[in-house]
Amino acid sequence: MQLPKKVILCEVGLRDGLQNEKTHLTTAQKGSVVRQVMEAGCRVVELGSFVSQKAVPQMADTDALFTQYGGAPGMEFRALVANQKGVERAAACGCRKVKLNVSASRAHNLANLNMTPEESVNRFADCCAIAKDHRIAVSGSISMAFGSPWETRIPLDDVLRIAEAYLRVGVKEVSLSDTSGMAVPSLVYEYCLAGEKAFPETVWWFHFHNSRGAAMANILAAMEAGATRFDTSLCGLGGCPFVPGAAGNIATEDVVHMLGGMGVDTGMDVDRTLEAARALRVLVAHDTDSYLLRAGCSKDLIRELPVKQTLPK
Amino acid sequence: MQLPKKVILCEVGLRDGLQNEKTHLTTAQKGSVVRQVMEAGCRVVELGSFVSQKAVPQMADTDALFTQYGGAPGMEFRALVANQKGVERAAACGCRKVKLNVSASRAHNLANLNMTPEESVNRFADCCAIAKDHRIAVSGSISMAFGSPWETRIPLDDVLRIAEAYLRVGVKEVSLSDTSGMAVPSLVYEYCLAGEKAFPETVWWFHFHNSRGAAMANILAAMEAGATRFDTSLCGLGGCPFVPGAAGNIATEDVVHMLGGMGVDTGMDVDRTLEAARALRVLVAHDTDSYLLRAGCSKDLIRELPVKQTLPK
Repeated sequence: MQLPKKVILCEVGLRDGLQNEKTHLTTAQKGSVVRQVMEAGCRVVELGSFVSQKAVPQMADTDALFTQYGGAPGMEFRALVANQKGVERAAACGCRKVKLNVSASRAHNLANLNMTPEESVNRFADCCAIAKDHRIAVSGSISMAFGSPWETRIPLDDVLRIAEAYLRVGVKEVSLSDTSGMAVPSLVYEYCLAGEKAFPETVWWFHFHNSRGAAMANILAAMEAGATRFDTSLCGLGGCPFVPGAAGNIATEDVVHMLGGMGVDTGMDVDRTLEAARALRVLVAHDTDSYLLRAGCSKDLIRELPVKQTLPK
Repeated sequence: MQLPKKVILCEVGLRDGLQNEKTHLTTAQKGSVVRQVMEAGCRVVELGSFVSQKAVPQMADTDALFTQYGGAPGMEFRALVANQKGVERAAACGCRKVKLNVSASRAHNLANLNMTPEESVNRFADCCAIAKDHRIAVSGSISMAFGSPWETRIPLDDVLRIAEAYLRVGVKEVSLSDTSGMAVPSLVYEYCLAGEKAFPETVWWFHFHNSRGAAMANILAAMEAGATRFDTSLCGLGGCPFVPGAAGNIATEDVVHMLGGMGVDTGMDVDRTLEAARALRVLVAHDTDSYLLRAGCSKDLIRELPVKQTLPK
């Protein structure tokens, strides 16, 4: 089994995880989560999004978070933006990396915005120009990259066409996101290999929702195809926007545990990651889709031997 | 990604799933589950166990289940046995396949039983002889085959030595069970390949507990190594005997869904499997570790296109 020696996890719990939580965390509470994941060894964190504060009030303090924590050395903090205004907010608070997003669903884009996903990406040229002026790096996300509620599957060519459009506007880091939780390992493997082959200069990320229990297998398949960058979310917070009550993102602590067990280095300490997850669960105040929070680490299962009979010499 | 075209799932919900449930299902209720999984296309079902009715009262009606359902054509019904008495009970009610079990933990076996796992298997010779007399097939399980609470990892050689012992007493079907939920995909891949190479005449099954969220990835890894037989449990019932509150077996409906999405034929209809899971959840009367019960099938997510703007011609 060919696996990478090292992978990078981006903690998205503070953005994708918290954006739909009923309990709104304070900036200080979010800051304590940031500190804990940093101490656990995480080096890439999605802090929030520069979008309408009315639409997503949970993310209203993204600027404050960047002002207070965005300067930590050795860290990459990123935020989601939707337009030029978002990039300008990012620049104003010292954010060094923004992430744009387009849906891979042609049908949805055409019906909703009257343009193809590639045309949507073309319009990001202005955002990219402003970001360049401010020396802000840009990442491009493709949501519903494997399936959408309006298509059973997104054809590979559609995904590649969007990645190409991103390249044309200067975006060399692309995230394939299984927003609808419809990806399966064989598809992930195929898209991952094809993407790397078609655009070797692109840095690929993968973002799996665990809606139908396949996210961990999808991560395995992506790693076998050479992927080394994954979004994960503490406690498994987040969720499928299409199915209320479905499971959320794949949990950071579960990924750190499984990858560690295979000798794949995430740079993260599983005990400290689990501590961070425990603390975040207290803050959101409800059970979450984390296995490790329920079962603990394998190594902590180790017990004293039972001594019903004497051991033979 | 090399995957088998076809795999066989053994439904273990009625045994591994129900044996620790507080609510004891009646024989008629269990019968309705059996009928539903048969209608869903399942052809191998673990109906119960012929063990002490005092110790495991939930399994006390195993004989009755075999009398009433064990004769269904085209089906393989099996039951767990621990000793000769169990095999005799199996013979008396028409059970055609029994499963023996030994723990892979040398430390635990030595401390608890004062013998090695292989010596435990040697003692199964009597059970196997009685089974042969009654023309009952025998399967051998190796619990904690990947890790145990007394060892971090079970060495591959230990597992192979037990499989060899099973062969010596005439058992050619062996199940590697991750009872403690400590397996990871790379280990599963390695053990699966090595087992097939060392004992090509052995038919291998795999039984994964999802305690730490790795079960689906373990199934993927096993399939990549050539495995085609897996135990699964409706609703994900069951659980790690060492950690109360941990997640249970990997859910049948989730496996049927993911494998179906990859074109791997389980012989099972995902809708009928999900129906069976829904019915069983009502019977056990609590939420379970099933993703599909929460999110539904990917295909059922497909929606009408939004029509905010006119589609271009």
